[in-house]
Amino acid sequence: MLRVAIIGASGYTGVELARILCNHPQVQLTAATSRQYAGKPLAEVFPNLRGKTDLICENLSVDELCEQADLFFAAVPHKTAMDLVPQLLQEGKKVVDLSADFRLRDVAVYEEWYQEHSSPEYIKEAAYGLPERYRSQIKNARLVANPGCYPTSVVLGLAPLLEAGFIDPDTIVVDSKSGTTGAGRAAAVGTLFCEVHDGFKPYKVGGVHRHLPEIEQELSTVKGKQITISFTPHLLPISRGILSTSYARLSPDATAEKIRTLYIDSYQNEPFVRVLPEGSFPATQHVRGSNFCDIGFAIDKRTNRIIVITAIDNIVKGAAGQAVQNMNLMCGFAEETGLEGAPFFP
Amino acid sequence: MLRVAIIGASGYTGVELARILCNHPQVQLTAATSRQYAGKPLAEVFPNLRGKTDLICENLSVDELCEQADLFFAAVPHKTAMDLVPQLLQEGKKVVDLSADFRLRDVAVYEEWYQEHSSPEYIKEAAYGLPERYRSQIKNARLVANPGCYPTSVVLGLAPLLEAGFIDPDTIVVDSKSGTTGAGRAAAVGTLFCEVHDGFKPYKVGGVHRHLPEIEQELSTVKGKQITISFTPHLLPISRGILSTSYARLSPDATAEKIRTLYIDSYQNEPFVRVLPEGSFPATQHVRGSNFCDIGFAIDKRTNRIIVITAIDNIVKGAAGQAVQNMNLMCGFAEETGLEGAPFFP
Amino acid sequence: MLRVAIIGASGYTGVELARILCNHPQVQLTAATSRQYAGKPLAEVFPNLRGKTDLICENLSVDELCEQADLFFAAVPHKTAMDLVPQLLQEGKKVVDLSADFRLRDVAVYEEWYQEHSSPEYIKEAAYGLPERYRSQIKNARLVANPGCYPTSVVLGLAPLLEAGFIDPDTIVVDSKSGTTGAGRAAAVGTLFCEVHDGFKPYKVGGVHRHLPEIEQELSTVKGKQITISFTPHLLPISRGILSTSYARLSPDATAEKIRTLYIDSYQNEPFVRVLPEGSFPATQHVRGSNFCDIGFAIDKRTNRIIVITAIDNIVKGAAGQAVQNMNLMCGFAEETGLEGAPFFP
Amino acid sequence: MLRVAIIGASGYTGVELARILCNHPQVQLTAATSRQYAGKPLAEVFPNLRGKTDLICENLSVDELCEQADLFFAAVPHKTAMDLVPQLLQEGKKVVDLSADFRLRDVAVYEEWYQEHSSPEYIKEAAYGLPERYRSQIKNARLVANPGCYPTSVVLGLAPLLEAGFIDPDTIVVDSKSGTTGAGRAAAVGTLFCEVHDGFKPYKVGGVHRHLPEIEQELSTVKGKQITISFTPHLLPISRGILSTSYARLSPDATAEKIRTLYIDSYQNEPFVRVLPEGSFPATQHVRGSNFCDIGFAIDKRTNRIIVITAIDNIVKGAAGQAVQNMNLMCGFAEETGLEGAPFFP
Repeated sequence: MLRVAIIGASGYTGVELARILCNHPQVQLTAATSRQYAGKPLAEVFPNLRGKTDLICENLSVDELCEQADLFFAAVPHKTAMDLVPQLLQEGKKVVDLSADFRLRDVAVYEEWYQEHSSPEYIKEAAYGLPERYRSQIKNARLVANPGCYPTSVVLGLAPLLEAGFIDPDTIVVDSKSGTTGAGRAAAVGTLFCEVHDGFKPYKVGGVHRHLPEIEQELSTVKGKQITISFTPHLLPISRGILSTSYARLSPDATAEKIRTLYIDSYQNEPFVRVLPEGSFPATQHVRGSNFCDIGFAIDKRTNRIIVITAIDNIVKGAAGQAVQNMNLMCGFAEETGLEGAPFFP
Repeated sequence: MLRVAIIGASGYTGVELARILCNHPQVQLTAATSRQYAGKPLAEVFPNLRGKTDLICENLSVDELCEQADLFFAAVPHKTAMDLVPQLLQEGKKVVDLSADFRLRDVAVYEEWYQEHSSPEYIKEAAYGLPERYRSQIKNARLVANPGCYPTSVVLGLAPLLEAGFIDPDTIVVDSKSGTTGAGRAAAVGTLFCEVHDGFKPYKVGGVHRHLPEIEQELSTVKGKQITISFTPHLLPISRGILSTSYARLSPDATAEKIRTLYIDSYQNEPFVRVLPEGSFPATQHVRGSNFCDIGFAIDKRTNRIIVITAIDNIVKGAAGQAVQNMNLMCGFAEETGLEGAPFFP
Repeated sequence: MLRVAIIGASGYTGVELARILCNHPQVQLTAATSRQYAGKPLAEVFPNLRGKTDLICENLSVDELCEQADLFFAAVPHKTAMDLVPQLLQEGKKVVDLSADFRLRDVAVYEEWYQEHSSPEYIKEAAYGLPERYRSQIKNARLVANPGCYPTSVVLGLAPLLEAGFIDPDTIVVDSKSGTTGAGRAAAVGTLFCEVHDGFKPYKVGGVHRHLPEIEQELSTVKGKQITISFTPHLLPISRGILSTSYARLSPDATAEKIRTLYIDSYQNEPFVRVLPEGSFPATQHVRGSNFCDIGFAIDKRTNRIIVITAIDNIVKGAAGQAVQNMNLMCGFAEETGLEGAPFFP
Repeated sequence: MLRVAIIGASGYTGVELARILCNHPQVQLTAATSRQYAGKPLAEVFPNLRGKTDLICENLSVDELCEQADLFFAAVPHKTAMDLVPQLLQEGKKVVDLSADFRLRDVAVYEEWYQEHSSPEYIKEAAYGLPERYRSQIKNARLVANPGCYPTSVVLGLAPLLEAGFIDPDTIVVDSKSGTTGAGRAAAVGTLFCEVHDGFKPYKVGGVHRHLPEIEQELSTVKGKQITISFTPHLLPISRGILSTSYARLSPDATAEKIRTLYIDSYQNEPFVRVLPEGSFPATQHVRGSNFCDIGFAIDKRTNRIIVITAIDNIVKGAAGQAVQNMNLMCGFAEETGLEGAPFFP
């Protein structure tokens, strides 16, 4: 039994990690930290976990943490992570970091979009935790930078097309919509029930969301040249789910048949990517609670554009589930362990 | 007091028309037809209307209808409308038709997207009921084709930009999201609460929604040349509201300042269009229950694209409210009559 | 034009007051106070109000307030109200107080459930602002204590039955469910979207909600003897609406017919109470956005209990709408002024 | 591997059974019947199941069914079940029947509330599938009548109190609220998204819901005498979850301490019942997607009433999950198999 700990257990990613891990047959959840809730049972903070875990939230030093576990899920804000993670690595621990601190390979880009980076030397060794594209690096990594939720949903949809040269990279427009768990669990007027319910709105309009450089990094890596896209996130009145609608002009030789074959070839051995049949499109409610990414597409011949739709559960494949998938790879467990449950609908 | 009737009162547009009209000081709602509910009080079908109207739903012939009212709101499905509306006009009545039957000025286009048109001769005289662009025609019309909900939200946002030459028409991508009232009130598994709630999905992907030719007609009219766009509608788990996110490349001489001035100039005298200040963007919950169309935009310098966001209440400005606005114009009432209420939030 | 001001405009009651008042033909909204948002346009805090009001939120002293308006809506927390309201009265102003501070006529009861009362001498002159029961007092009052949302929904349903002696007061059980606007607009984890959405729970279980003594005061007043009831509130994943389900044993002589007659007689001249026909029951969605209270009932012969269902919009009839109704009475306006709009459905 | 089949797979209970069973390690789901969807892959009807099952919906005769499985989940409407189930039993099959047809032990009561019973002789041998009270009968049964969702939520909460004599059976009032999955998946205007969303209403008011005799049967069995209660169901704008709030007068010797001890003793060995600590109360969102029943209570000393709150996921513990729990018992599997997942929150 691998001993694992969640650092920063009081958010939605934290509770989802705990939900998944307490049923994972090859790990033992030994610690959950939370400054705010220190001394309180985790199952009192999140009553859904009653009967599933007896853990008490603790406020632990790095030394204390290192005594209790061998692999850590760091679910703390960026900036906090860059200070904490290196200490864990120095003690020989493995880390899946769910913050943004080790996702951007170019420190200058990180510092432009976030702030000064205190541990740039660790960026290089971090594997970008998108198993569908970096499985071998992840298997050998001691530090995995778990991808952002939006990047996961966008990259899985567009990477094959870019790789095959089927779309014009200058024409990419990505319109994404996220459930409210993505906004976190901090008390704030903007995410109160009455502000979000029965409503819908964009935010960070104009190419200013911090997931944008991450998406562009991954698309550029695939294509082997710098790609710049338009990206607009929106807030959905649902708890879980991201649906991204991506548009791009097709290359002259791209056809619906070739594209379908491409997607199937790309993902047929992937346990968590489902390529939908022609005429079917993803819906967030069909991946709810699961680690699946669903992909569907259509071609608009009138405009010669492809429309690619992807859906994930933002706190599973977009956060906690993908983190467990990464842990499974890092530790030699079967990749699907703990993540076998079908989506729950309705 | 103008006598008005609602033909097809059993849908969501019907009940919203009734809600607005029963407080309109210059009209008397004299009839509401419904085959399904004939003989039943309208306020029993829609208990929100209890105490506001004593009307009984009726199944009336055209002759009977014509005895009861002078202006008609036709809230019946397309195809039904094209047969009914000419009969009302022939009796000297005024009609606001909420179907698609008289919106497309090119019969061939109509017949490509819908079906054969039985009354093409009436298309020509129909005013397209978007007052912000066709006010003078509407004032003189006896038949107004009330615009589709998506077209209203898109055209109000993009028309000024196209007119001013500020965007490249070949690069327009429109990603729209609609509340579920847009799907109507017919019993169907796909719009059951449990299918829609806590979920989100696209539909009619690939440029196949019937509002697309209507949008293109209006944008093309503005531009004076054929415009083809990408358009993807999505279903939101809310009752009321459409939010459209439109993307286009900017022309070389377009600047944020010029665009802001343009929008303000275009809409400063419009009672129902609110141009939001820089950094503010529309949200469906801020137009809920009102006839407002909110417009906001941002420029992404990295990609040289503008992102225009518009929000309306799809059954008010996107249907019943705009229909009443059109009636006010047709009958010489003050344009805002009956539509003065502020949006309700939350 | 009566000059009115909202003290405490940043909450959900505040915005609803502003929404109603900005369309009220006999008043001018001259000030809206908010410490938090001082200097900010009210329509920026609540973008639904854009175009409907130019007011800037201010942080005003009592003296400054008194210069600006003649009637005040105090939408501040209890305790704050009891200090503020007397100062306004001393300056000759009229006040509708939406806090609990002047609702309980017995200071001892107030102090048991809230805290020490600093202005007990004003309690006596406050009219309890339930027009259906205290219309004449309200008309002559300079201070109206606007009822709590739960009490409004319960008292309108049960008072006629108690007055007529049709139910046994010892057997009353009230199970109430409220929309989340009732929890206010303060940032708090418990009312975040993700905590409330797609869920349902009770709170203040066991007879400990502060609206309980208020309900009992009014029921006891009706009956002329002390009544003690069971009352459990619950939190609904909706924004607006309270539905109360009340149970009581019938007296031997009570019959369905007598009870129906009683309700109709009690409320036939009330503009905002709708007694539903046999077999019809209230639903929050049918009073949404309106000042109506809907009442329906059924008799369970097997247990000899009556079940009374009432529904209101908790921030309209349960707060802002009833406050405006009270103002109308205090100022001699027609009682329905500004409150004529039909409920929004859907 | 036990071969199991779902008869009537097209409803919400059907899809939930499939979701649970496709991850159950000791069964193989071999058939799923649906007249409506015959020939269509189950994962096309319910896209959440893509990748989890290849089953094609079929319209099978009893003979064909019997060839394919050894245990059947009958998720068909009442009346249909009473004709079908006996045929399966005669072929030596085991059946978990999710209809009401074998729940009521008194045929006369069944016929009063439903219709004539065609197979009364099978009622006697049916075990009532509430494992917490009938575990040994279920283990030996070939036919289990899976309880109704409301009865499950009510009986688990009240049975211990009645058994211990802690409450007065004549004073029981049960106010229940159910998610909309409980209304089924048939196309109907009343359960459309726009009718249910952002609303709340009672139904079957006055002691006329068909789950009432079932609740009374079980409470009466516990008490050893006929018990009659008041019961009002309500429709919540959520997909999953029932919360029941029950009220009763306490017996003279009942104390909070004794009651807490009673609940703990009653349920400490039950894998799916969680007795919450003092001051904590159930919420549907904390049992979502799980087979748990959460129980909390408070005592109102002012009225000498106990308020018992119970929450379940109506399509898990209230239907499909409890059915699998029953299958586990019938087949000698560990009772929790396939049902170990923690609730999903948020």
